[in-house]
Amino acid sequence: MSAPKFAGIIPPLCTPFHSDFSVDTESLRRHLGVQLDAGVHGIFVLGSSSEVAFLPDTQRRTVLKTAVEVVAGRVPVLAGCIDMTTLRVAEHVKAAEQLGADAVVVTAPYYARTHAAEIERHFRLLAERTELPIFAYDIPMAVHSKLDPRMVLRLAEDGVLAGLKDSSGDEAGFRKVLLGKQERGLDGFAVFTGSELVVDAALAMGADGAVPGLGNIDPAGYVAIYEHSLAGNTEAARREQERLLKLYSITDVAPAGRMGRSSAGLGAFKAALKIRGFIDNAVLAPPQLPLNAEELSLIEFKLTEAGLI
Amino acid sequence: MSAPKFAGIIPPLCTPFHSDFSVDTESLRRHLGVQLDAGVHGIFVLGSSSEVAFLPDTQRRTVLKTAVEVVAGRVPVLAGCIDMTTLRVAEHVKAAEQLGADAVVVTAPYYARTHAAEIERHFRLLAERTELPIFAYDIPMAVHSKLDPRMVLRLAEDGVLAGLKDSSGDEAGFRKVLLGKQERGLDGFAVFTGSELVVDAALAMGADGAVPGLGNIDPAGYVAIYEHSLAGNTEAARREQERLLKLYSITDVAPAGRMGRSSAGLGAFKAALKIRGFIDNAVLAPPQLPLNAEELSLIEFKLTEAGLI
Amino acid sequence: MSAPKFAGIIPPLCTPFHSDFSVDTESLRRHLGVQLDAGVHGIFVLGSSSEVAFLPDTQRRTVLKTAVEVVAGRVPVLAGCIDMTTLRVAEHVKAAEQLGADAVVVTAPYYARTHAAEIERHFRLLAERTELPIFAYDIPMAVHSKLDPRMVLRLAEDGVLAGLKDSSGDEAGFRKVLLGKQERGLDGFAVFTGSELVVDAALAMGADGAVPGLGNIDPAGYVAIYEHSLAGNTEAARREQERLLKLYSITDVAPAGRMGRSSAGLGAFKAALKIRGFIDNAVLAPPQLPLNAEELSLIEFKLTEAGLI
Amino acid sequence: MSAPKFAGIIPPLCTPFHSDFSVDTESLRRHLGVQLDAGVHGIFVLGSSSEVAFLPDTQRRTVLKTAVEVVAGRVPVLAGCIDMTTLRVAEHVKAAEQLGADAVVVTAPYYARTHAAEIERHFRLLAERTELPIFAYDIPMAVHSKLDPRMVLRLAEDGVLAGLKDSSGDEAGFRKVLLGKQERGLDGFAVFTGSELVVDAALAMGADGAVPGLGNIDPAGYVAIYEHSLAGNTEAARREQERLLKLYSITDVAPAGRMGRSSAGLGAFKAALKIRGFIDNAVLAPPQLPLNAEELSLIEFKLTEAGLI
Repeated sequence: MSAPKFAGIIPPLCTPFHSDFSVDTESLRRHLGVQLDAGVHGIFVLGSSSEVAFLPDTQRRTVLKTAVEVVAGRVPVLAGCIDMTTLRVAEHVKAAEQLGADAVVVTAPYYARTHAAEIERHFRLLAERTELPIFAYDIPMAVHSKLDPRMVLRLAEDGVLAGLKDSSGDEAGFRKVLLGKQERGLDGFAVFTGSELVVDAALAMGADGAVPGLGNIDPAGYVAIYEHSLAGNTEAARREQERLLKLYSITDVAPAGRMGRSSAGLGAFKAALKIRGFIDNAVLAPPQLPLNAEELSLIEFKLTEAGLI
Repeated sequence: MSAPKFAGIIPPLCTPFHSDFSVDTESLRRHLGVQLDAGVHGIFVLGSSSEVAFLPDTQRRTVLKTAVEVVAGRVPVLAGCIDMTTLRVAEHVKAAEQLGADAVVVTAPYYARTHAAEIERHFRLLAERTELPIFAYDIPMAVHSKLDPRMVLRLAEDGVLAGLKDSSGDEAGFRKVLLGKQERGLDGFAVFTGSELVVDAALAMGADGAVPGLGNIDPAGYVAIYEHSLAGNTEAARREQERLLKLYSITDVAPAGRMGRSSAGLGAFKAALKIRGFIDNAVLAPPQLPLNAEELSLIEFKLTEAGLI
Repeated sequence: MSAPKFAGIIPPLCTPFHSDFSVDTESLRRHLGVQLDAGVHGIFVLGSSSEVAFLPDTQRRTVLKTAVEVVAGRVPVLAGCIDMTTLRVAEHVKAAEQLGADAVVVTAPYYARTHAAEIERHFRLLAERTELPIFAYDIPMAVHSKLDPRMVLRLAEDGVLAGLKDSSGDEAGFRKVLLGKQERGLDGFAVFTGSELVVDAALAMGADGAVPGLGNIDPAGYVAIYEHSLAGNTEAARREQERLLKLYSITDVAPAGRMGRSSAGLGAFKAALKIRGFIDNAVLAPPQLPLNAEELSLIEFKLTEAGLI
Repeated sequence: MSAPKFAGIIPPLCTPFHSDFSVDTESLRRHLGVQLDAGVHGIFVLGSSSEVAFLPDTQRRTVLKTAVEVVAGRVPVLAGCIDMTTLRVAEHVKAAEQLGADAVVVTAPYYARTHAAEIERHFRLLAERTELPIFAYDIPMAVHSKLDPRMVLRLAEDGVLAGLKDSSGDEAGFRKVLLGKQERGLDGFAVFTGSELVVDAALAMGADGAVPGLGNIDPAGYVAIYEHSLAGNTEAARREQERLLKLYSITDVAPAGRMGRSSAGLGAFKAALKIRGFIDNAVLAPPQLPLNAEELSLIEFKLTEAGLI
């Protein structure tokens, strides 16, 4: 029985832009450095927190190339290959191979109305086309279908999937995967939660790690949760998670009626990254709307309160 | 008051593939010829019926290039620019300009959770970047948000949108747009229904035309509806539409539990196109599942019954 | 072949309240009289427009009893039996029988997660328990499932359903029912649209009638559409429907962010009924929010513009 | 600071029926006895697991009356008051008062399209009408809206709500309520999870207790989780929860395509209760479909495997 190659805290990196929406690679390098210094166990680029849905393919390549260079093999680099269907995803997977990613992360098909049998076929066809480990990315909020725990386990057993990044918010389904993994002895199958507010709970249930968007802003906090959890110190893990839950309220400063949740959440993340000096510019890709001055002040206040500035 | 440049029957062309999923341009040329011979008033490539969500960018370009060449200016060619957000769509728009499309067709953003104000901003930003007429493509089934009739009218009035292709199935909302168009004197704004089973009704309400998926198989039928409608012969239009409604049952031969609606519907369309000799190969892009032999026989039977073979 | 017993314009009656939310039977009688004088062909009480979801059973009985008395057999009275599942609906059906309704109107089950086979079973079990004609009420907006046209036709053929009241907004599915009715020779099966903005189109497709919420305010307008349609005067029907479409904008005076669609729509209906003198009090049942003074003025302005006051 | 009056394991009792769907009060008494003997800390009748949506009001009253009698004050009895809107719910609340319930459990309005401000108003209006403690029941799967954690906390602070029963599956939102409770010092506000597969995690986060459907079948298991958790023995709590997670697979024996989730889940619960001898008859209220012989055998096998028979 071997421990999974992928474990621990793997933040889904935000993508800093110049004001023309080209990738600000200097900020990206600095931000990557901050994460690595904090002791993260991997880097996930081109996930939803990276605004991957907003990035043209050229920018996606720049992000991945920069990450692979900066990380230089110290930790694994996972690359989101986010597109609608098999052939389009396969092209992103090919690019990830060429640029040196250590694994790819793939959602269920979207836009076209799909079916469970077709979702399963999607992952199987992609696995036939690449040697890279494939993580299934369960994100019904974005793709409007949920991965069935039984399908995930079947694909893990068949060697199609190397891991799961579960951002579904369905902790009961997540736990079914964890239990199934244990029952089937799938020790190498890496199960990550994307639910950044219950990382301590996920680890206590046996998750291999977490991919917390809020980790962009406070990677050390999440690394601490992981270490407390490994050490069996559930109380300390809980206190740290609660501290981060409080910090997460920065994503609520923009009222629901004014902009989308993506703008409100990622806008807050990027504003905080700028305030903390990790990146230079908090601009979001279009058509997302910007936070206003009052909302930005409130974020600054909350960061001060959290002792992060 | 000028009539809209875009009017009549504009079928959303299916994309024939070779068995390796490369575009079968020979079949595509033949299929385009069939449509033009039937008297259609425009060609819409790279819409949902084309499996646009399944086509890599190279194949998308091949499709559009072929269509522009074959059509050779006889009718307008509309190009779907289907992607998640503004910058990605802008790249498809740029390609459409270069390849000679007469208009582009754009959905609301998807994957990222969006907001009405961001949907509107999306269309406005794209209009700033192109001289091509932009059609809004209202397809909540795919993008999981519905375009507000009031926003559509505002964008039409401001010259952002040249037209609407409404595949929402919401005929009441469609009619609000038609009424608003009339009240504001927006004669050049082209309003098309994508609901292929109520084209006669849409035309009777004042729609400029239709983009019927089933038109791939029986373009003459839809052209007849349009002509009957122009001639004020609503009864003949209705009879023709009812005949096509009966034919549409080919999309129901695969039971709901076995595959997605996309596979069942597009699989039936392509099977019928092959049976009628318009294309050589009925294969669907992955991960869609194929119809089985029994289902294919049933489609053949229905086409015979309809007098189409 | 016999014409259906149920045909024409059957408004879904709003329920006037006293300020303590008891039924204002005096207003209800007056409002019923207005409808009958306008020549409506039936009365539907206890539908969604009646705030049936807000009415305790005692009030429901008062409404039905009053309607049966006032109508006195001149036209049929349909009674909504709106509840979550079979046994609860069966009790409302029993009450409808006792109070003299001519038909009952029943939705798919809701609250509990249901399944197509269970929806079908629901209607079959209810039909075993009553002699009254049963209308299926297709209203996915409220019950979160859509009735399958093939199931509706099967139940019509088996004598389980006497009619359909389709408020789904899915005109293509509606037309499948109409076509299937014709193909199977189900002449006695009454198909009504609940889409008050496309009544002319529904009648042109062969619908037996309409159940228009807006008919509360302008029953004569809908009766005129029906008569124009019977007379084959589609152009006059269309003009009348467009006039009513314009009037329908009273339901949009409250901004989407301030209250639910039910409050905004029913609040506007009841305000208009009060302004026209059909009822005394425009109060909505809790927890619905009231329109404000500015919104009420705007409704009054729109009614004046429409020549209704 | 006082501990909440409501804490611990409060199973949402299944309702045993005779074959004519009248309440089998003898089985109900026996089943209540089993629960009390196992040491549960309260009884919740007329929740979703009780088939409340399927029970006519008379049966609801029989259930509550029986529970109050059998429990005889040893633990609190909570009564679901599940209906669509304020006035209808108020009648159930009145009945609960008369029959001696210790608290009522109320969902957001449903059927009518509602709005956050109206949901809040709903709870406030009900609180004005009763002295009984009100629990908010967050169950978006049934009512199609989610309670906002900030609203829940506001209502707790204002004394409108005495507790929350969160069956939303949204553990992050649940935790926001727990954190808010702690920050505001709302010690008397009782926060329960309805997610029966993560009870150990919910308790570790600070929840006051759980309302586990599966507790019907194995109340002692859930009581053990609670006791381990109080004693700080998180590892033992986790092992017990994992055992129950395995048992929960009885709800999956019916394939998704054959019946609704309600039938599959509650059918399995009732079958297990009958096998264990807690109730006499496993029949479900209509229109739910029954499990077949093969599925029942599989449940029996799983219970044997679990050492429960």
